[in-house]
Amino acid sequence: MRRREFLGKAGGLAALASAGALAGCGSPEANGESTGVRDTGLRFHWRMVTAWPHGSPGLGAGAEYLARAINELSGGRISVRVFGADDLVPALEVFDAVARGSAEIGHGAAHYWEDVGPAAQLFTSVPFGMNAQETHAWLYQGGGLALWRDLYRHFDVIPFPCGNTGAQMGGWFKQEIHELSDLEGLSIRMSGLGGEVMRRAGARVVSMAGDDIPEAMRGGRLDAAEWVGPYGDRDLGLHRWGWHYYYPGWQQPSSLVEALINREAYEALPSGLQQAVTHACRVASDHMLMEFTARNQQALDELVSVYDVPVQRFPDPVLASLRRLTDEVLEEMADEDSTAGRVIRSYQDFQSQLARWRELTNLDPSAG
Amino acid sequence: MRRREFLGKAGGLAALASAGALAGCGSPEANGESTGVRDTGLRFHWRMVTAWPHGSPGLGAGAEYLARAINELSGGRISVRVFGADDLVPALEVFDAVARGSAEIGHGAAHYWEDVGPAAQLFTSVPFGMNAQETHAWLYQGGGLALWRDLYRHFDVIPFPCGNTGAQMGGWFKQEIHELSDLEGLSIRMSGLGGEVMRRAGARVVSMAGDDIPEAMRGGRLDAAEWVGPYGDRDLGLHRWGWHYYYPGWQQPSSLVEALINREAYEALPSGLQQAVTHACRVASDHMLMEFTARNQQALDELVSVYDVPVQRFPDPVLASLRRLTDEVLEEMADEDSTAGRVIRSYQDFQSQLARWRELTNLDPSAG
Repeated sequence: MRRREFLGKAGGLAALASAGALAGCGSPEANGESTGVRDTGLRFHWRMVTAWPHGSPGLGAGAEYLARAINELSGGRISVRVFGADDLVPALEVFDAVARGSAEIGHGAAHYWEDVGPAAQLFTSVPFGMNAQETHAWLYQGGGLALWRDLYRHFDVIPFPCGNTGAQMGGWFKQEIHELSDLEGLSIRMSGLGGEVMRRAGARVVSMAGDDIPEAMRGGRLDAAEWVGPYGDRDLGLHRWGWHYYYPGWQQPSSLVEALINREAYEALPSGLQQAVTHACRVASDHMLMEFTARNQQALDELVSVYDVPVQRFPDPVLASLRRLTDEVLEEMADEDSTAGRVIRSYQDFQSQLARWRELTNLDPSAG
Repeated sequence: MRRREFLGKAGGLAALASAGALAGCGSPEANGESTGVRDTGLRFHWRMVTAWPHGSPGLGAGAEYLARAINELSGGRISVRVFGADDLVPALEVFDAVARGSAEIGHGAAHYWEDVGPAAQLFTSVPFGMNAQETHAWLYQGGGLALWRDLYRHFDVIPFPCGNTGAQMGGWFKQEIHELSDLEGLSIRMSGLGGEVMRRAGARVVSMAGDDIPEAMRGGRLDAAEWVGPYGDRDLGLHRWGWHYYYPGWQQPSSLVEALINREAYEALPSGLQQAVTHACRVASDHMLMEFTARNQQALDELVSVYDVPVQRFPDPVLASLRRLTDEVLEEMADEDSTAGRVIRSYQDFQSQLARWRELTNLDPSAG
């Protein structure tokens, strides 16, 4: 992982102290305090590297949406050229490219950036964790975003929440899963903490970009694969091998997508354009969540009715075991890495508090 | 209800044809098509009338947040002065004030505007309906926002989704509710369709602004009152009379807040500023939902631990009866009003589709 010393490559943008910026996590108030530079009417041309197949539904399209929103909200003064995974850098090197200034902005998911440290994974998904609405409330109202920004500060990268796939599916499995031991020895593509839990259950976890999954499924390199959910999986064609499609997506009840911005590039903007970028991320974030919310079930209906995909639920004892393994993983992470420990405590405190509210607002009979 | 003929009062703003605007419900693409007027660098001074007590948490504060976001995203070119309920017009006359151009923008909830027709209520809350995330997906991805805009078109008012309280509580009751007949004869403050359902259950439904509720509870004019939820109710002091606080908020699993914009005022903006306003509404919308999500349970904890509020669940048979009455109300509305019928069909189709996805993503044991 390259750090501050590589920022000299950042396209000649002036580095500026801007201590007040972002303190309040992107609220209008906070951005009002942002110093930025004096506005001399400059125009900016940004490159956006992404971790997604170009134009893929929800994710790649979400990056394009963000680029347009930034352009619109900046009154056309920031133009953003979007590159799909592998166009400029591979999916898993997006963070690095933004950190060294090869691109001003990136669009990806924190659990891909292994070099940032274990805590990064917590900013994509926590297995058996909060849903999208609760997670965003933690970020904006519960201190989560400040912790996220602290984590990336060392790399001179600023994360902005920029989307959410909502709850995902549990993945595609060649064989049925009856008990936990059925996971032993399986080669599975699963990112982040879910992957770590799978590893403890005895699976062999493989890391690969989305585009490579179909061929790995076909060629026998994988016995199981998790990507996003029906809307994204259908597009990649993961239903073509007759595998079992499992739910619930215990590993990702919410899955955050982030925009990563090179600090030097951000601080080279006058404060009005910093606000435009900040708000564009929030609009794009909401747009992506709405798109996945609306399209997932439509896509699943098609997978079932047109392609006869067998949709199955993990047995309760398997889910209970995965939950126990998740608790172990989080406890050990907190013990081994103090940064991760701080994030986990903040997250879990917020989750406990909201769990009661979730119960109270449940309309199912005798839910409360 | 005053209509187009009153728009001459709209502060001398030029009326302009702008047929392409908003066609795509506020997405960047759609706003890119918006014509607006040629941008001559004009500045705009808007008045915002609101249906909320000035500065009230979540709602009044949400109006202030929107005003700041519009100012920021317009690069300071639109300044918005915010008026609390009764400062300029009473809460329930906000729509009318915007329609006649006495204010360029309003902040309220559609179920207050009885003169718009029965369908308006559907754009705040549908009892036993979708949650906030699902409702917003319906608006942006399922055609809901287009129906909402059609409904207000006749009044030359444009609605923008601009917040959500999330799920609410079921309200404060002087006496315990054991069975449906306990609702008979109660004087209850409850807005929208929930109020209509209560009426069918034999209650006497009273309409009043939030600020008037505490005195009506104290003085014996009310036997029950529903306002927002713990975060808002605590601020109004509704816990001071020792009443029972019931959940779940069957009448409002989601409660939309809207910005209303006078069409002439909107069309007087160059397209860049139209986009700024559109995106500011979406940012403010997300902000409000996050605030309520984070603060409701904190406020409820305080109500219970500091004020000994008795928090109780409606018995299942009462909820089942209210659900049956809700179905009746919606069926009759659809029969009597073709506009309401179109909205109800669109809403219910979307709700049915998402109900399956909600099941699939539920992590509780044997939920699926």
